Amino acid sequence: MHEGGSRRHRSQPQVRDAMIDNPYYGPAAQGAFKLYDLGNLILESGETLRGAKLAYRTFGTLNAEKSNAVLVTTWFSGTGKVMEDVYVGSGHALDPERYFIVIVDQLGGGVSSSPQNMPAPQAMAKFPRLSIGDDVQAQHRMVTDLFGIRRLALAVGGSMGGQQVYEWAVRYPEMVERAAPIAATARISLHQQVFVESLKEAITSDPRWNDGWYASGLDVRNGMDRMARIVAVLGWSPQFYQQQRWRSVLGMASLDDFINGVMKAYFEPMDPNVLLAEMHKWQRADVSRHAAGDLAKALGCISARTMIMPISHDQFFPVHECEADCALVRDARIRTIQSPEGHMGLNGFEPGYMEQVDRYLNELLES
Amino acid sequence: MHEGGSRRHRSQPQVRDAMIDNPYYGPAAQGAFKLYDLGNLILESGETLRGAKLAYRTFGTLNAEKSNAVLVTTWFSGTGKVMEDVYVGSGHALDPERYFIVIVDQLGGGVSSSPQNMPAPQAMAKFPRLSIGDDVQAQHRMVTDLFGIRRLALAVGGSMGGQQVYEWAVRYPEMVERAAPIAATARISLHQQVFVESLKEAITSDPRWNDGWYASGLDVRNGMDRMARIVAVLGWSPQFYQQQRWRSVLGMASLDDFINGVMKAYFEPMDPNVLLAEMHKWQRADVSRHAAGDLAKALGCISARTMIMPISHDQFFPVHECEADCALVRDARIRTIQSPEGHMGLNGFEPGYMEQVDRYLNELLES
Repeated sequence: MHEGGSRRHRSQPQVRDAMIDNPYYGPAAQGAFKLYDLGNLILESGETLRGAKLAYRTFGTLNAEKSNAVLVTTWFSGTGKVMEDVYVGSGHALDPERYFIVIVDQLGGGVSSSPQNMPAPQAMAKFPRLSIGDDVQAQHRMVTDLFGIRRLALAVGGSMGGQQVYEWAVRYPEMVERAAPIAATARISLHQQVFVESLKEAITSDPRWNDGWYASGLDVRNGMDRMARIVAVLGWSPQFYQQQRWRSVLGMASLDDFINGVMKAYFEPMDPNVLLAEMHKWQRADVSRHAAGDLAKALGCISARTMIMPISHDQFFPVHECEADCALVRDARIRTIQSPEGHMGLNGFEPGYMEQVDRYLNELLES
Repeated sequence: MHEGGSRRHRSQPQVRDAMIDNPYYGPAAQGAFKLYDLGNLILESGETLRGAKLAYRTFGTLNAEKSNAVLVTTWFSGTGKVMEDVYVGSGHALDPERYFIVIVDQLGGGVSSSPQNMPAPQAMAKFPRLSIGDDVQAQHRMVTDLFGIRRLALAVGGSMGGQQVYEWAVRYPEMVERAAPIAATARISLHQQVFVESLKEAITSDPRWNDGWYASGLDVRNGMDRMARIVAVLGWSPQFYQQQRWRSVLGMASLDDFINGVMKAYFEPMDPNVLLAEMHKWQRADVSRHAAGDLAKALGCISARTMIMPISHDQFFPVHECEADCALVRDARIRTIQSPEGHMGLNGFEPGYMEQVDRYLNELLES
């Protein structure tokens, strides 16, 4: 005991050095959220995430039967804040007057336990590699232990959030009454594996990334800027560029104005290791691992009423791949959201986007 | 004179240091080609490319009326060799029994005057910035002065080669009887401007690129490898990945095998400054500069019978953008080549690819 205490004492300075005080992931930028203490979370990799915390925010009231719970998950680089601002509220399908809505930040995403807020010896570059399965396991514990929920009226999320929705529906079929993966597939495509690797390389090739040991995320600005441009290539559709929709939709003056003022500016306050931690999960999302690689068998486990909602011009998760998933889910319908923005349409910039999402979610919720 | 001579003498060591002896661009790898000496070529930028040389190879015989000349141009990273091997020969539309076929390597592409083979003071990083217009001006001089050709039965090329075809048809309408831009548009899209910039950044962010002053292209392997992966993301279609066509089409064993054994291996012997020189042109190709930015007016100058041939799954030059060009060319037809490979289908890997190209080119040549 004495020896252990002494070791802990000696490592104190390292603990303080390792954590980064990045205000982007605090309440000033993210709005009000709470932290659920998971304790030690044993990960799929076999490693343990120690003192793991899940950030969440709730809206509305859980009814006596606990039958009106909606779980909302988050996407790459996004936090609970954007889901709160864009997807939840009076007038939306996700209406706190009717539903008890739990928005949960993904692990590694900056607000929940993440590379930049984790103490040594799991800080920064030593943050464990996570999986979408780890998120869903952690969320399951929170939903059942903290709220006593036995059944979700709906699990909904976009992009990596949709990957979590598929994982929920396959893993806990008895708990998921309805599922709505938006702009996501059940198994990451090989095309996207290559794409995400190119994003990782943009960051990790920056000498100032320094194997993950930097004093501030801003030191890695060059690599982050390069990543932002590659995201722009696939994140927005060719039609978005052709029509110069950054003018009408985003109010930017030119292509450079858009790349600098939207893409680079969006990522600049974020933590590079956070994005890398998320990419590791994004790149490996695959429910078929629950059925030894048999995607049809895995998706065959889903009993939720499922509304698969691709985005018409999405180059991350193209419509034809979402259609292939749909054919493998028993009680699934597909509703394609028309949005020339492509994958980035998820952020709700396009005036007609949320109207479509709400319509399709209402259709699902009323079924 | 004495002073000038003395200055030249002092600069000799620099001349030798600057040029790189890269066997990839020599006859051992490229097959037989000749060099046409353009002398001093005044570029669109106002700079002069001194002692400029255009690499070319011919097949067949120019008839007495000089009415059977076909000009074949080259694409990004491609040389006359691939055009010779894939597009020209007995049984193809470009048949040397019928046509006098001139394949010309683009300037900056490694075989014609290029950063790595240019003497000081225009070597390496000091190689002038070129335009597609410079290529066409140089080709025009060669075709008219060397061969005395006054009219091309056909100008044909893919990708950047197609950009040159559009430039020819707009700039010398009286000389181009038929034009066949394959997998190309008349004006670079804003989407592709962003994409090409991401390729440039992959190379120029490599510290060993050293602002273009390296001893060997292999020093810049890390940046070139990153570029190869980004090319892979957009160069091949999502369907190519989904169907794992690197097995059936390319004989590769896995995704990594494909990325390493095809994409990285393809670019590894090339010169980084060569690729950057080509990208500069690619990114700016725009015939509308001949009409103060009015694309309709520029394309309205074309009198060639034009066969626009997009590739069905192309993510560089999508079909809908080629259709938009087609609507602006008086005597244009569009024939879409079905190829799940996407843009990379240009290389003729797909068994049915050349059969379609030959069919459409024959249709054009017989009209």
